[in-house]
Amino acid sequence: MASIDKTFGVSLLTCVLLLLTCAQAGKILVIPVEGSHWINIKILMMELVQKGHELTALRPSTSLYIEETSEDYKVLTVPMSMQQATSRKELEEYALNWIFQQAFTKHGSSFSVAWEFIQVLQTGTQMSTVAIGALFENQEILEGLKNGDFDVILGDPYNVAGVMLAHYLKLPIVFFGRWMPTEDIHFAIAPSPLSYVPVINSRVTDRMVFSERIKNVLLYYSYLAASHLLIYPAYDKLVQRYLNTDVSVFDMYKKADIYLMKVDFVFEFPRPTMPNAVYIGGFQCKAPKPLAKEIQDFMDNSEHGVVVFSLGTIVRTLPLNIAREIAAGLAQLKERVIWRYSGEPLDTLGNNTKTVDWLPQNDLLSHPQTKVFLAHGGENGIYEAICHGVPVVGFPLFGDQYENILRLKTRGAAVLLENTQDITAQDIFSAIRLVIDDPSYSRAMKHLSELHHDTPVPPRDLAVFWTEFVMRHRGAGHLQAAGHDLPWYQYYLLDVTAVLLLGLLLCSYLMYTFFRAVLRTCCGRKDRRKKKRS
Amino acid sequence: MASIDKTFGVSLLTCVLLLLTCAQAGKILVIPVEGSHWINIKILMMELVQKGHELTALRPSTSLYIEETSEDYKVLTVPMSMQQATSRKELEEYALNWIFQQAFTKHGSSFSVAWEFIQVLQTGTQMSTVAIGALFENQEILEGLKNGDFDVILGDPYNVAGVMLAHYLKLPIVFFGRWMPTEDIHFAIAPSPLSYVPVINSRVTDRMVFSERIKNVLLYYSYLAASHLLIYPAYDKLVQRYLNTDVSVFDMYKKADIYLMKVDFVFEFPRPTMPNAVYIGGFQCKAPKPLAKEIQDFMDNSEHGVVVFSLGTIVRTLPLNIAREIAAGLAQLKERVIWRYSGEPLDTLGNNTKTVDWLPQNDLLSHPQTKVFLAHGGENGIYEAICHGVPVVGFPLFGDQYENILRLKTRGAAVLLENTQDITAQDIFSAIRLVIDDPSYSRAMKHLSELHHDTPVPPRDLAVFWTEFVMRHRGAGHLQAAGHDLPWYQYYLLDVTAVLLLGLLLCSYLMYTFFRAVLRTCCGRKDRRKKKRS
Repeated sequence: MASIDKTFGVSLLTCVLLLLTCAQAGKILVIPVEGSHWINIKILMMELVQKGHELTALRPSTSLYIEETSEDYKVLTVPMSMQQATSRKELEEYALNWIFQQAFTKHGSSFSVAWEFIQVLQTGTQMSTVAIGALFENQEILEGLKNGDFDVILGDPYNVAGVMLAHYLKLPIVFFGRWMPTEDIHFAIAPSPLSYVPVINSRVTDRMVFSERIKNVLLYYSYLAASHLLIYPAYDKLVQRYLNTDVSVFDMYKKADIYLMKVDFVFEFPRPTMPNAVYIGGFQCKAPKPLAKEIQDFMDNSEHGVVVFSLGTIVRTLPLNIAREIAAGLAQLKERVIWRYSGEPLDTLGNNTKTVDWLPQNDLLSHPQTKVFLAHGGENGIYEAICHGVPVVGFPLFGDQYENILRLKTRGAAVLLENTQDITAQDIFSAIRLVIDDPSYSRAMKHLSELHHDTPVPPRDLAVFWTEFVMRHRGAGHLQAAGHDLPWYQYYLLDVTAVLLLGLLLCSYLMYTFFRAVLRTCCGRKDRRKKKRS
Repeated sequence: MASIDKTFGVSLLTCVLLLLTCAQAGKILVIPVEGSHWINIKILMMELVQKGHELTALRPSTSLYIEETSEDYKVLTVPMSMQQATSRKELEEYALNWIFQQAFTKHGSSFSVAWEFIQVLQTGTQMSTVAIGALFENQEILEGLKNGDFDVILGDPYNVAGVMLAHYLKLPIVFFGRWMPTEDIHFAIAPSPLSYVPVINSRVTDRMVFSERIKNVLLYYSYLAASHLLIYPAYDKLVQRYLNTDVSVFDMYKKADIYLMKVDFVFEFPRPTMPNAVYIGGFQCKAPKPLAKEIQDFMDNSEHGVVVFSLGTIVRTLPLNIAREIAAGLAQLKERVIWRYSGEPLDTLGNNTKTVDWLPQNDLLSHPQTKVFLAHGGENGIYEAICHGVPVVGFPLFGDQYENILRLKTRGAAVLLENTQDITAQDIFSAIRLVIDDPSYSRAMKHLSELHHDTPVPPRDLAVFWTEFVMRHRGAGHLQAAGHDLPWYQYYLLDVTAVLLLGLLLCSYLMYTFFRAVLRTCCGRKDRRKKKRS
């Protein structure tokens, strides 16, 4: 059976879902996170706006990405004091510095990376607690929220304010994202067998050899200890102060109504999940828009095809030596290259390479002349590549990027550049040549793309459906596992195991005593008989 | 936000899914199971036939339910010898006897029920191995299947022939159902924390007290031991003989492509699941058909409403004393009763009660005058009750029926009759009165019904979609967890734990030796100094 063209069906389906969910309008409170997180959640927000819902986004006055006003939704700004703003700015710079270091200096072991990661998370926690404090100290805003008559909170799980406000306002919460302050939300809500579910920064796949399993286990417990000793207590203090409850923030996360997970298993390793986890990976993919005339010509007139190259938005400049090597590698290609680059002019740049300040990534990836995507492995880019079936050469910088590309590599759809800080022109050239010349990469990526698109409900519609579901039914309590209410020693059956082991020991002891007594009696008799006979 | 009417959307959605999946026709080999299993899988089969696929169902010549021919699909009959047929008949009678005993004699503890259950499963295993043997000994049929050019196997997981044929014919397999030969398929494929996931026959909910958790754990390991000592070895022998491989049948089950689970979490307790488990609970619900004139009048003219009463298809007669008590209880009601009853005439039968040989259950439950469903708690009836929002009085007979009703009771939508073998007229009367007079039961069931219907894709369309998905892509390997390939000691990290513990012990020992040496040296010196001084 051949794959079929389903464009007609899918678009009709979208219309139907639109009809289906065109219920009475509701009021949604959005608790976002900066940067690419905001860009992503805004896609869902705009879908909800189009369905007629009234949205209110909460932002701290120091926010860089979240605009102060919008025509489509309300924005509620939490004023931050000068001092708060300054310390926030310092912390942000520290975090950006770390990212730059991570990207371009030699990596240590997974454990030193993990330790640095935890330190940055601590910095993030400081930033976050300052903002949450400012919110919960602001009676005017809190009153406004209380009287806001919201139906649901749409929260980014990285921002603890969401779960705290859900508790404070007694509202159901839909999470949109994947990362809690310290970890993949999966680890908090679903059993995660460490024998095949890799921990972040472990750099292993779901098929581990013995030493990798040991590493994965040790890393997991390191994170667990660090996050429950260094990160969550800071939030629990806020909870105690402002919500007047002893429920831990971690337990609050487990009680969210729906988790809209930015994950698709054509990309992520299959793993246990829960009934209230909804997978919407690739929801950001959209139909391409026409290119600007100049770029369109550049693409159309490329005889051998084009390499699209972008390292995302956060790392804006590259160290000169690395940029020069990359440019030299690209110059050797017969293909054309379009490179999002802002930095000093490069003497090694080839005639085939066009640098631009910004590039319409999604539109370029959908162009038939695009042969390979040279990318840092951020989630958005990865899903756009899957969406359009373009194989990847991965140049990971920090965070989950190495592991994102590792997942594509495992499926034969990417080449992963290791040791990017020592990259040479030859490395870049060979990797791109390999992916273009060996058709297996393109074939694997096209297969992933087909699987990704072959879904009964497109991910964006699914996200809208479940948000509205929670609004219609004021929650999704029927999908929450009872296990989340158990203390950990009961969840892991430690009490049961202890009692059963004690019982077993007691039985063994009693049997031992009994048989010893029996033996003694018998032997005693024999002895006596022997004595009698003698 | 109020709930909305979605009939238009849902039917349009169905049309779209029809369009969406109207791909090239494929060939499907169906490996069904007798009785209600067959009635259920036939619903999906007919949907697939309507989509233009060519289906072939495999049946043993001794089958009672699966017809020898059909206009809609092919039927391939595996001839069974007279001896096989006779022994099969004897075994069937034994199983039916057990069911009757289970239903109408006093129950022992969960453990004795479990032990009897295992014995019946053993009987089922004998029946099943005979049929599988007859299939794999029949070269003509095997050749026919090999040349059948099938795209996929649609199997009932209770029938081991499905997974064996998938291996033999190198075909992907879609399972439709929930029960493996010995257990809920969930336990084989997904982590199942025993602290809140009840084992079959445990008669506990997902919120257990300490003693219930102990019972659940002990029951689980009893089943585990019994099934891996008494049931699976019989199948493994067949696998070794006919498939010439050492892969165990249990491992084959874990590698199915898609599990179409006849489960909906408005009914089942939420629990961990896997990416290739698709929930299609309630897929059997359909729009009601018009009633026969006589029954329609009976329903329409009921002043106070109607009780619909059926104990399913397997238990065809009731012991006379029980039937008399039930009839007497029903006679006291002001409501009318329609009762599916085949047995001796009852002197206690009231004027309000109409007995029939067979009743159009789905159509009756959808009638607005139906106030309560007196039912044995079989899966079909439960989902039809949920579908039409009719509260239940449960009269469980055997198998999972007690626990099905327990789940509805937990959600406030049913009353569960305990000790059905000692039932009195008063018990029946009070239970029905309670469910009719206390509006909370009806409200709870209507809420479950709303939740159940509020889904982005109706369950039957979902089942068709995923079957065709597997046909389009020749499997769904990308959704299979890598953990299924690990031996159990690696899956449970026993090797890692052992090495880490050994390491810890070694470190402790080395530190102890070191500090003892240091202490000795220091004390030694002191002693010498003391000696010097003295």
